[in-house]
Amino acid sequence: MSENLLLSTGVKQKIIDWLSEDIPSFDYGGHVVGNEVKTADLFCKKKALKNNTFYCTSTLLSLKILTWIEWYYQEGEEIDVDKSESKRIAVAKVTGPVNKLLQGERVALNLIARCSGIATKARKLAELAKQHGYNGLVAGTRKTTPGFRIVEKYGMLVGGIDGHRMDLSSMIMLKDNHVWATGSITKAVESAKRVGGFSVKIEVECRSLDEAKEAIQAGADIVMLDNFKGKELVSAAALLKEYCCSGDLSSGRSGVLIEASGGITENNIAEYFSDSVDIISMGNITQDVNHIDFSLKVTH
Amino acid sequence: MSENLLLSTGVKQKIIDWLSEDIPSFDYGGHVVGNEVKTADLFCKKKALKNNTFYCTSTLLSLKILTWIEWYYQEGEEIDVDKSESKRIAVAKVTGPVNKLLQGERVALNLIARCSGIATKARKLAELAKQHGYNGLVAGTRKTTPGFRIVEKYGMLVGGIDGHRMDLSSMIMLKDNHVWATGSITKAVESAKRVGGFSVKIEVECRSLDEAKEAIQAGADIVMLDNFKGKELVSAAALLKEYCCSGDLSSGRSGVLIEASGGITENNIAEYFSDSVDIISMGNITQDVNHIDFSLKVTH
Amino acid sequence: MSENLLLSTGVKQKIIDWLSEDIPSFDYGGHVVGNEVKTADLFCKKKALKNNTFYCTSTLLSLKILTWIEWYYQEGEEIDVDKSESKRIAVAKVTGPVNKLLQGERVALNLIARCSGIATKARKLAELAKQHGYNGLVAGTRKTTPGFRIVEKYGMLVGGIDGHRMDLSSMIMLKDNHVWATGSITKAVESAKRVGGFSVKIEVECRSLDEAKEAIQAGADIVMLDNFKGKELVSAAALLKEYCCSGDLSSGRSGVLIEASGGITENNIAEYFSDSVDIISMGNITQDVNHIDFSLKVTH
Amino acid sequence: MSENLLLSTGVKQKIIDWLSEDIPSFDYGGHVVGNEVKTADLFCKKKALKNNTFYCTSTLLSLKILTWIEWYYQEGEEIDVDKSESKRIAVAKVTGPVNKLLQGERVALNLIARCSGIATKARKLAELAKQHGYNGLVAGTRKTTPGFRIVEKYGMLVGGIDGHRMDLSSMIMLKDNHVWATGSITKAVESAKRVGGFSVKIEVECRSLDEAKEAIQAGADIVMLDNFKGKELVSAAALLKEYCCSGDLSSGRSGVLIEASGGITENNIAEYFSDSVDIISMGNITQDVNHIDFSLKVTH
Amino acid sequence: MSENLLLSTGVKQKIIDWLSEDIPSFDYGGHVVGNEVKTADLFCKKKALKNNTFYCTSTLLSLKILTWIEWYYQEGEEIDVDKSESKRIAVAKVTGPVNKLLQGERVALNLIARCSGIATKARKLAELAKQHGYNGLVAGTRKTTPGFRIVEKYGMLVGGIDGHRMDLSSMIMLKDNHVWATGSITKAVESAKRVGGFSVKIEVECRSLDEAKEAIQAGADIVMLDNFKGKELVSAAALLKEYCCSGDLSSGRSGVLIEASGGITENNIAEYFSDSVDIISMGNITQDVNHIDFSLKVTH
Amino acid sequence: MSENLLLSTGVKQKIIDWLSEDIPSFDYGGHVVGNEVKTADLFCKKKALKNNTFYCTSTLLSLKILTWIEWYYQEGEEIDVDKSESKRIAVAKVTGPVNKLLQGERVALNLIARCSGIATKARKLAELAKQHGYNGLVAGTRKTTPGFRIVEKYGMLVGGIDGHRMDLSSMIMLKDNHVWATGSITKAVESAKRVGGFSVKIEVECRSLDEAKEAIQAGADIVMLDNFKGKELVSAAALLKEYCCSGDLSSGRSGVLIEASGGITENNIAEYFSDSVDIISMGNITQDVNHIDFSLKVTH
Repeated sequence: MSENLLLSTGVKQKIIDWLSEDIPSFDYGGHVVGNEVKTADLFCKKKALKNNTFYCTSTLLSLKILTWIEWYYQEGEEIDVDKSESKRIAVAKVTGPVNKLLQGERVALNLIARCSGIATKARKLAELAKQHGYNGLVAGTRKTTPGFRIVEKYGMLVGGIDGHRMDLSSMIMLKDNHVWATGSITKAVESAKRVGGFSVKIEVECRSLDEAKEAIQAGADIVMLDNFKGKELVSAAALLKEYCCSGDLSSGRSGVLIEASGGITENNIAEYFSDSVDIISMGNITQDVNHIDFSLKVTH
Repeated sequence: MSENLLLSTGVKQKIIDWLSEDIPSFDYGGHVVGNEVKTADLFCKKKALKNNTFYCTSTLLSLKILTWIEWYYQEGEEIDVDKSESKRIAVAKVTGPVNKLLQGERVALNLIARCSGIATKARKLAELAKQHGYNGLVAGTRKTTPGFRIVEKYGMLVGGIDGHRMDLSSMIMLKDNHVWATGSITKAVESAKRVGGFSVKIEVECRSLDEAKEAIQAGADIVMLDNFKGKELVSAAALLKEYCCSGDLSSGRSGVLIEASGGITENNIAEYFSDSVDIISMGNITQDVNHIDFSLKVTH
Repeated sequence: MSENLLLSTGVKQKIIDWLSEDIPSFDYGGHVVGNEVKTADLFCKKKALKNNTFYCTSTLLSLKILTWIEWYYQEGEEIDVDKSESKRIAVAKVTGPVNKLLQGERVALNLIARCSGIATKARKLAELAKQHGYNGLVAGTRKTTPGFRIVEKYGMLVGGIDGHRMDLSSMIMLKDNHVWATGSITKAVESAKRVGGFSVKIEVECRSLDEAKEAIQAGADIVMLDNFKGKELVSAAALLKEYCCSGDLSSGRSGVLIEASGGITENNIAEYFSDSVDIISMGNITQDVNHIDFSLKVTH
Repeated sequence: MSENLLLSTGVKQKIIDWLSEDIPSFDYGGHVVGNEVKTADLFCKKKALKNNTFYCTSTLLSLKILTWIEWYYQEGEEIDVDKSESKRIAVAKVTGPVNKLLQGERVALNLIARCSGIATKARKLAELAKQHGYNGLVAGTRKTTPGFRIVEKYGMLVGGIDGHRMDLSSMIMLKDNHVWATGSITKAVESAKRVGGFSVKIEVECRSLDEAKEAIQAGADIVMLDNFKGKELVSAAALLKEYCCSGDLSSGRSGVLIEASGGITENNIAEYFSDSVDIISMGNITQDVNHIDFSLKVTH
Repeated sequence: MSENLLLSTGVKQKIIDWLSEDIPSFDYGGHVVGNEVKTADLFCKKKALKNNTFYCTSTLLSLKILTWIEWYYQEGEEIDVDKSESKRIAVAKVTGPVNKLLQGERVALNLIARCSGIATKARKLAELAKQHGYNGLVAGTRKTTPGFRIVEKYGMLVGGIDGHRMDLSSMIMLKDNHVWATGSITKAVESAKRVGGFSVKIEVECRSLDEAKEAIQAGADIVMLDNFKGKELVSAAALLKEYCCSGDLSSGRSGVLIEASGGITENNIAEYFSDSVDIISMGNITQDVNHIDFSLKVTH
Repeated sequence: MSENLLLSTGVKQKIIDWLSEDIPSFDYGGHVVGNEVKTADLFCKKKALKNNTFYCTSTLLSLKILTWIEWYYQEGEEIDVDKSESKRIAVAKVTGPVNKLLQGERVALNLIARCSGIATKARKLAELAKQHGYNGLVAGTRKTTPGFRIVEKYGMLVGGIDGHRMDLSSMIMLKDNHVWATGSITKAVESAKRVGGFSVKIEVECRSLDEAKEAIQAGADIVMLDNFKGKELVSAAALLKEYCCSGDLSSGRSGVLIEASGGITENNIAEYFSDSVDIISMGNITQDVNHIDFSLKVTH
């Protein structure tokens, strides 16, 4: 895979900002440690998915560490710390002036810690879905850390789940507020189509089957059933799937997707696996994350 | 308390960046929903510390929501959702053009979710320390989300623990790399003092009692005992405290602080509570956080 | 209509940059003119669509012109200069310190000149389509002025045509390069779906009917027929429409959209109007634009 | 010539902003296409001036395309597409990782399209002037696209006309507003000189011969005759030229320049060609531009 | 006077940067002091020119200090501390939340200290010139503190001397390097005119009378005699003035200005005062400045 | 020494801003001079400390001058211009395209001029202290040029004095305002400790011995005696030193530092040298600086 190509050089400014956050003025430690060229090992200390090659590499390269970083694992590959006696596994080797290594150390580790944590959690969910023979998508949400969303969405993709919409500009989601403002779901969808055009998908959050049907008729691309509990949701989804393929609708409505959302966690997700549910989205993926502890040790 | 005065108007640029991350181009939803003035309730759905008044308020004000936000809780006050039948409690009310409310909604909620999560976890630790009669400090680390550190450190302070050093420019921590580069702990401390001057504290990470004694002699302000396990650490700290007050040292060394760090969590922190340990620091505070779910409901 | 709600406060930084471009250091003119409060009329000198309220207003307000701007026309309303004897029509009145008025004058006029030019051109095309009874969409492209895209896309929307995809992150378009890199259209679409997920649409640029059919089978949301000339395109589109609704495909493929693109201008667009063509896109809309001349006259 | 040396490395931030505008978050296409090194041809499809080497090169280099760009034409050289059978001519060759080529493609093409359009239009005007034996300057204005002025002014220079003042800080132009605010042209010029000093030129926009004479006496460097029509302007200019060299004025006034402006286009410019008119300025050069279509084709 | 109108709102970003430099993360002092509304006096402790109203006001207002600042002196007015018994004079009063006052205090004082120091030094030179009956201009240079030039140039203007060119883009100065690169002064001036056009002045740095004459013939607007000592310079300038008005030159050359530069200080400037010398420029004005000490005292 | 390692790559953005300040739009001179590779000598014209390698080098490298800069002196080494007959000494040689050399020339010279001026002044004070056998620290203040503080603090360090606190976030200084707001010095220190934690030092500005004693008891790390004159200060400091080591205080108070501040200059500093005074701070170091004139001469 080559997920790291998803990340373009436009992130450079972010990396500079992150490095500046950690050194607002003097680098006292750099003065003490000097700038001799050294090599450091990057260790992982928890069972995890290897992750975030792009940002780690970019962060360290931003500091003009001349010698390349050598990664021992592929992006998304499993690092099985349990198999190691020392309970830590080297995932990369990086060489450069030691002051530069230490300047980038904490930013790089913080990046990889949260991103790998998310990817590892995402992988667990992806595997759970596979075990249950689920063919739909497990997806994240926009419940991400401000300023850090692209890294967190990237972790989801590497872990094997869907990133869901990136922001308010890249998919339109209509909720109750939008509906009352326009008078009806139909009018809200129309208004959205008017400006979003053909290139932006429209999703409608629905609280009943009737709302969902209106949304489908109105031209929604995705219907979200909000806060329907397990079984109730599955049967509603099945009814809607049938409705989409019925002859009552104008052509092209058979492709409408059904999304389940609200209160779904690792513990209850199995109740939502069903052929009628296309997408199961969970804010929990970025809200209750165990970070993966990595460390950088200058060795020689 | 007035922790929110810790946050100066210099954060404005960050808030603008965070809002732009969520709306890189068009605000399609704003077009649909219109700009009628509405009021929204901000609900908390988990037992938590109320938190992050400053950022939430600033975020929403950045969008020129003219009517002020009214908070029902003080910064750091406990919100006991369990006491509410509906399992959610309104913590604030905000009034403004509905498109603006929705523009800032996700950023504000994401801010408060992570920050309150950290504060709530910090409060638990602070109370644990109190219960054990511990007089020292529980502290965080620099293991924070890149670009978001000030919010996370703020959460620690509101929760009642110590934020530890903010960045590489505001306290000098010398580790093994700095020591080998200069030849000895003594030389590393000297080099650090040369540039940090009297206004920046110096901490030395030590792996043995001998190293710690050298650090104390050399003029370190804080000695960190890295990865000493529970009892071993407590007895080492006691020996060092005695050493600091002994007549062998030049005057002024009696104030050296002892810090315990490495592998400390909620589960084993009690082993470290001791009068000889001044600071117990934990990366875990920002690494395994359960976010607090908040939501904004436009009501009327 | 309320298109100006599409534009969020995230554009503030852009406006500041634009104002700074015009006054990199001293405002000599401001020194000469003083800061007495004055009123200015904003005149339009060509038949045009009134446009760009948001940016004009924001630009002038960024300069802290305290008194509000009063617009005489709705966003997108036609200004018929020909009906005016003086061949110019006042479209707004703005009051403020005269140095501030002059600081923002050129930026505001330059904004409105290009944006109204695009909107006026777009309106002509929208009306042409209407006259021919065309039910599909006329759309723009990403052929916009660097840094100014959101204003130009906004002009398209106000004029009544479709903005097409905003950027490389908000819809995936696969071209020949992507195809050879993966081996086939099918593989390219798969690869795109893997990362774009359910929320991002996928379009495939095709050079033959066979390619188009493969794209439809592979799951493309839109098929672009690139550089097919008029009649040829219309008949190809008709065949594809039929194909989409045929029983050979998995369900949900009946909604695939057909886009015509390449070498289309005001002069030949009529050849492309057909029920089988969903979208007709033209780079020309932003490439051969007659700007609308506006001027600001301080009156009293 | 070496116009591209006019553009300094300070534009880097602009280029980064322009690239980010086109990829606000993920580069989905880059993921699909991979990063194999490829070569692309840059084609021109209209008779035009080759232009904008600096920006194109910088844009592509900003993406770390390692292999240099080879340009086949000099900056400002004519590309005669009509001489090519295929109606397109390769103007450069660029080699690099294919995802990087595609990341920069649209920004680079958009840059060159507008800039070459302006240069080509400017060249036509420069040649027209030459054919009429006009020895003065044809010049542009500040009617440029916000944020993009330096590229548009650059196009004027490459095309062979004068860029006119860059911004409000680099030449002072006094109009009626400035005059009433100070009481007289003489006082306005004095006030401007007071702050602009000797290094900044002063131009006065005049509506009558009397005003122009006052401006000349007051020390204006340039007198603009605003909205005088063809012949009327030429004879007014001649009178003023005579006045400047008359003995009535203090020494040094013989160098005053006369500028014609207002409503001048390609169609009526010939009426303004005269030895007494030093500068003919036209907003039209950047307002009614036919962009030059370029394309980038990855070949092997 | 109204020099403060020279400074436009484009400086806002600079002020935010300056405030952030002083509070990169927490405002600990703000937490301690609270946000009660207080009034502070701004005192001057040295005989000086009052100065920098714009920046001081903007800095404090950027912090949202709601109540306005009241200035007791006009911009550029002399503050005669010696007349005060307490050897300090209140120049303004500012009211606002005390934490905000303290946030902006140091930035505002640092601004005014350096700017008033420059203005005061400039005023001394302007008066010296006046006493000697000198009608030309005393001017500064580009020898300013990086990032702070506009404030320093502003100080010069308030003090009553000429700011000289603002930057490399607003006047062209040709030196020996430019000359050898093109072959001759004449060719260098031609090349500069080609791109600078009519709106940008051209100055040539000359080391001999012959070079100066060539520069005058070539069309230079200003001739700088570099490092000619006192009397030698005055006589050279006189010869050149005569040359400019001689019949040998094309018309318009009588207005050429003569500038003296290099090694001029307060101590030797009198030697350069002469009717033939139009401009005397000194780097010293911004290089050996005694700052004016101001302080802000919260009073009630 | 290796002070230049204190400066991290986070300053890149500042350098770009400084270069842009000097070339806001076109580099006219660069066009004239061409881009042939040339070598330039960097000369020093005053007896000074060599200084600012990092920024000079970075500035010139930011312009992509490919060939390295060769420095002939170490950072902080004395350049004794008086020993040179020509009264100027070459301190470095730099090679690159001549337009790039000239683009960076003024910024680099302005940087080094002020920074070396400060370092040279600091060195004089450091030597004066040494001559008097003073073992304490001479220190600067925050009275620096806005936006340029890090360079000025760096000059202090190279000159051999203490930089004092960097900003409001890196040491807490409590003054009278903080005291009245909380009710007492004790309460102010407590409030500061609550948020600053163990890692940030606390200094209290005191106007009497009683205040100083309260500050020491309350836990201040440093006590500043503000505006005590020479002898008076020395004897107060001696009393406080005794007090700190007395048995009345809790352990750890023996290390409290005493700082003298207010009205101290080169002329009266000797009165403050005493074993009881740990720190003597002077705003004067950055307020009355004679810049060191450097120049760059392109030679071959």
